[in-house]
Amino acid sequence: MGQALVSIIMGSDSDLSVMEQAASMLKELGVSYEMDIVSAHRTPEKMFDFAKKAHERGIEVIIAGAGGAAHLPGMVAAISPLPVIGVPVKSSNSIDGWDSVLSILQMPGGVPVATVALNGAKNAGILAAQIISVKDRSIREKIIAYKKGLQEAVNRKSEELKRC
Amino acid sequence: MGQALVSIIMGSDSDLSVMEQAASMLKELGVSYEMDIVSAHRTPEKMFDFAKKAHERGIEVIIAGAGGAAHLPGMVAAISPLPVIGVPVKSSNSIDGWDSVLSILQMPGGVPVATVALNGAKNAGILAAQIISVKDRSIREKIIAYKKGLQEAVNRKSEELKRC
Amino acid sequence: MGQALVSIIMGSDSDLSVMEQAASMLKELGVSYEMDIVSAHRTPEKMFDFAKKAHERGIEVIIAGAGGAAHLPGMVAAISPLPVIGVPVKSSNSIDGWDSVLSILQMPGGVPVATVALNGAKNAGILAAQIISVKDRSIREKIIAYKKGLQEAVNRKSEELKRC
Amino acid sequence: MGQALVSIIMGSDSDLSVMEQAASMLKELGVSYEMDIVSAHRTPEKMFDFAKKAHERGIEVIIAGAGGAAHLPGMVAAISPLPVIGVPVKSSNSIDGWDSVLSILQMPGGVPVATVALNGAKNAGILAAQIISVKDRSIREKIIAYKKGLQEAVNRKSEELKRC
Amino acid sequence: MGQALVSIIMGSDSDLSVMEQAASMLKELGVSYEMDIVSAHRTPEKMFDFAKKAHERGIEVIIAGAGGAAHLPGMVAAISPLPVIGVPVKSSNSIDGWDSVLSILQMPGGVPVATVALNGAKNAGILAAQIISVKDRSIREKIIAYKKGLQEAVNRKSEELKRC
Amino acid sequence: MGQALVSIIMGSDSDLSVMEQAASMLKELGVSYEMDIVSAHRTPEKMFDFAKKAHERGIEVIIAGAGGAAHLPGMVAAISPLPVIGVPVKSSNSIDGWDSVLSILQMPGGVPVATVALNGAKNAGILAAQIISVKDRSIREKIIAYKKGLQEAVNRKSEELKRC
Amino acid sequence: MGQALVSIIMGSDSDLSVMEQAASMLKELGVSYEMDIVSAHRTPEKMFDFAKKAHERGIEVIIAGAGGAAHLPGMVAAISPLPVIGVPVKSSNSIDGWDSVLSILQMPGGVPVATVALNGAKNAGILAAQIISVKDRSIREKIIAYKKGLQEAVNRKSEELKRC
Amino acid sequence: MGQALVSIIMGSDSDLSVMEQAASMLKELGVSYEMDIVSAHRTPEKMFDFAKKAHERGIEVIIAGAGGAAHLPGMVAAISPLPVIGVPVKSSNSIDGWDSVLSILQMPGGVPVATVALNGAKNAGILAAQIISVKDRSIREKIIAYKKGLQEAVNRKSEELKRC
Repeated sequence: MGQALVSIIMGSDSDLSVMEQAASMLKELGVSYEMDIVSAHRTPEKMFDFAKKAHERGIEVIIAGAGGAAHLPGMVAAISPLPVIGVPVKSSNSIDGWDSVLSILQMPGGVPVATVALNGAKNAGILAAQIISVKDRSIREKIIAYKKGLQEAVNRKSEELKRC
Repeated sequence: MGQALVSIIMGSDSDLSVMEQAASMLKELGVSYEMDIVSAHRTPEKMFDFAKKAHERGIEVIIAGAGGAAHLPGMVAAISPLPVIGVPVKSSNSIDGWDSVLSILQMPGGVPVATVALNGAKNAGILAAQIISVKDRSIREKIIAYKKGLQEAVNRKSEELKRC
Repeated sequence: MGQALVSIIMGSDSDLSVMEQAASMLKELGVSYEMDIVSAHRTPEKMFDFAKKAHERGIEVIIAGAGGAAHLPGMVAAISPLPVIGVPVKSSNSIDGWDSVLSILQMPGGVPVATVALNGAKNAGILAAQIISVKDRSIREKIIAYKKGLQEAVNRKSEELKRC
Repeated sequence: MGQALVSIIMGSDSDLSVMEQAASMLKELGVSYEMDIVSAHRTPEKMFDFAKKAHERGIEVIIAGAGGAAHLPGMVAAISPLPVIGVPVKSSNSIDGWDSVLSILQMPGGVPVATVALNGAKNAGILAAQIISVKDRSIREKIIAYKKGLQEAVNRKSEELKRC
Repeated sequence: MGQALVSIIMGSDSDLSVMEQAASMLKELGVSYEMDIVSAHRTPEKMFDFAKKAHERGIEVIIAGAGGAAHLPGMVAAISPLPVIGVPVKSSNSIDGWDSVLSILQMPGGVPVATVALNGAKNAGILAAQIISVKDRSIREKIIAYKKGLQEAVNRKSEELKRC
Repeated sequence: MGQALVSIIMGSDSDLSVMEQAASMLKELGVSYEMDIVSAHRTPEKMFDFAKKAHERGIEVIIAGAGGAAHLPGMVAAISPLPVIGVPVKSSNSIDGWDSVLSILQMPGGVPVATVALNGAKNAGILAAQIISVKDRSIREKIIAYKKGLQEAVNRKSEELKRC
Repeated sequence: MGQALVSIIMGSDSDLSVMEQAASMLKELGVSYEMDIVSAHRTPEKMFDFAKKAHERGIEVIIAGAGGAAHLPGMVAAISPLPVIGVPVKSSNSIDGWDSVLSILQMPGGVPVATVALNGAKNAGILAAQIISVKDRSIREKIIAYKKGLQEAVNRKSEELKRC
Repeated sequence: MGQALVSIIMGSDSDLSVMEQAASMLKELGVSYEMDIVSAHRTPEKMFDFAKKAHERGIEVIIAGAGGAAHLPGMVAAISPLPVIGVPVKSSNSIDGWDSVLSILQMPGGVPVATVALNGAKNAGILAAQIISVKDRSIREKIIAYKKGLQEAVNRKSEELKRC
């Protein structure tokens, strides 16, 4: 796919089944990406290095997923000038997901994280594509087409329901 | 400032004191913006019309703030192909802000809203600038400088504390 | 059943197993209804059109069910002059149902949604019938009979318990 | 105003400042009403009597407001065949309003309460008028006009904001 | 067992598996009891009648269990002069039990309900026995013995753990 | 007043303004009581000693109030065979009272605490009197009279409201 | 292993599967420990005795796990001068773990409990070792090596992901 | 005071009024400390550098306070081998403190943070002293004396209450 524009990182390989949905969405929308495991808590230096250099490597958007006391999205946003999308993952010992959501969402003034719904990696992929579409209008056309597809799928379900 | 790239909308004029912080931040970072009151619940047709046409008018990012059962960001995201940043506002009859946060954050698959912290309009402004920086590298330089400024401010406070 | 008086809509076909309970209840109470899938987020124009015209088609009450950041009941209530009953559905990625409940219940002043319990579609059906009974006293009689039935069912269970 | 169609009751005179907003709204929309203090916990027999006879006196809708462990709306709904609108009031020792909301909203199957937002008595008034409009089309016209008024007020605020 | 001193009631037969634990505990502690289904919402008149007459029949303590918007304990406490113990039951559509807990616990000043833990019917049985022990010292002896039994059970488990 | 039958204890003198309401209520209902500060965390031995001996001194009911991680009611209930009423106090650093409520209410099987509402010391007083009334019928008469008084107060407020 | 430096206690044998993770971690880091069941609610005297004497027996750190209204960590911390680590356990009737967390964490000023995550016994073990490392530098070396191991495990997973 | 053994850091100077209580406590217990502002989000490199070197400078315990999405304690714990005490601070835009608490407490396995109560900096100071006491028995004596002081203060309050 050429130079990756979006970098998808996650704190643990247990987040993979959720975070892959961001990758699928980016593939569907024709946006090139890379994917890696980077843990703020277990590989802090790798995380630091990743965040410092991502924009120099041509990355335009970072998607970071993590669960529990989820510090990865916020720490990457602290270091990188790029827009960072945070995906709260409902991990096994999470308190119903509240910890993941609040530790990603409630960033202090100065350091935003664009937070999506709990386990909302699919939406993180779409949002990253929307951000890329600011400079690549062909992606915007794909987003418009994708939205039309959503609408048509609902209409088909509606027809089915009425037939019953 | 020329053509507005960011459109800041809010559900009620009572959200203005919070949402103005997005405008200030955009001004500081040199991103042109417009600001209006658009209510999903009281002016649904204006909202519809706004969301349908924003990208045709040259808008690249929408920032939408609302409180309580906050439907404005999600509805605009449903209609517009642009990236939408949602600002949960802690309004007077809100249940501690939980209603604003959850009704903006928990969007279904297919329709993302980039949610920031409760009353986090300042971060919405920075995030919008980060998105614009995807096509305008001069904005990225300003974001890097802004981050340096945050760092220096902390260092000054640190020096003051040590002097005491 | 002739002209539908109640329109049951839901945001997704995954809400159907819950929302069918509203239909069953209306059938039991002899109130005519229609049922469709209308998504605020994926088919916003259909939603708009539906809400604008429902009262012109003879609909008297709308029951709208949705989960997560559930905007369907509130948006329909924003557009239609009819009484709107909202059913918070506990969908798969919901945060324990809190998101559905709060984004339906906490409507701003001016735009009410008559909210029932989480997954409370059965009660939405009864409430719609109670509203119709304002002009059709035969429905009120059925509601009074239904309540008597509830009472008798409890009394039978009470007898069984005492026999053990 | 002639025969009251809506009965507004509340558990305590401390709920009056909230519940008066239902009365104002009904007055504005031309719906006749009565107002009384009826406590499920302190005057259970009066409550019982009220709920048993309201529909025989010509009442069509009951609005019941209460705070804390708020049993008034649900108990009246258990006894009366009329539609009951519940207003959760944020009373002084309430746990942030959660107790009022949950003890009104989460009614079991068979006994609905049409719940509005915390302290949402204004919306209870509008909802009651919407219910009455099922048999009195002049009220529906007033609701349509009221919605137009909401829209115009937002538009005026929007103009003011742009002038600044 | 002679005259029942404790009356165990519950809102639905679905609460029986929880509420039986109160009965077992009372049996173990030698306190006579009766058990019935009494629903505040579906059999309000039976509930009223029950609460009005319980103390005249020789009942000394009432244990009432219910789930969701749980009004049974509070309503019985409103009508009866007896001490009422409330058991919040985590029913199927409950929001994680919070609704049951708050609608039983947060009673207004003047009408107490002695609330025990979520699904804590066993403790309700012990508490009822403790109340009866105010006039029957033989029950107090049994409670002291029961506590000794708890202690010995822990000590046995402790021995087992150390042997491993 | 002779031998105290009820002992009111609290974890800190900052709980006094709340806990005094239990004392007032007992005075009004003619039940003798004593009051002291006993901290589970700061005076564990005094607490232990208190709990061990209360029933030997003729105390029949213990009311214990505490805030935050409130261990006093549960620890006293662990040691004493008497019925223990717990009053969750909303202290200054409490998280909205949730900590006080949950750490008093959620006792494990075997060790009940009769929990009343947040800051509900008044109800703790009434509940203690209801427990004493099991052996002293004159107290029950006072409770019946007290309930009548509550009813009359509501009726007076109702009259006032109607006069306006 | 010689004299135990860390004492792991838990309120019930049902906490054992969680609390064993603290033991495994201490074994891995070469810190000697003991393990026992001590219930604040069912064996208050044993708990008292344990807490009073632990430091005299050479114990340096106490790890205490409990669920629901979890009083064990706080009560031990009230009595012992040693640092106490609290592990909130998500027990069967817990309200999603909130009760365990809040009743361990929210200790009043003067009596700290070092609280770890819900079911976080593994971290309790590491924390205890970190505390012991204050006087035993060989343990610190093991902790540094353990952290390196965490990092290497993530790097291996990262390599695997890239190979796919 | 000689070589600092405890380092108190905080994310912002707005946390100072809370965090000073840790310093006061350490002073009272005779433990040397240093204090600085180190922000994970605004000075990530300083934070990194601080955490990497603290143990080499002779620091034995780190106390870190932060509010909102509070990443400072967890990130320092990720990098440093020292025991880290986290103080959740209830900052101005915090959602009632839940965000601070959960983002500090819910650390993943491998990286503990010893969390104290919301705004519990005083207890963080005591806990740090308890940890230092593992190698310095004179500090343990001071802690024992401090606990005695707490007890005496309660006893004095108890005497005062009885005199009234």
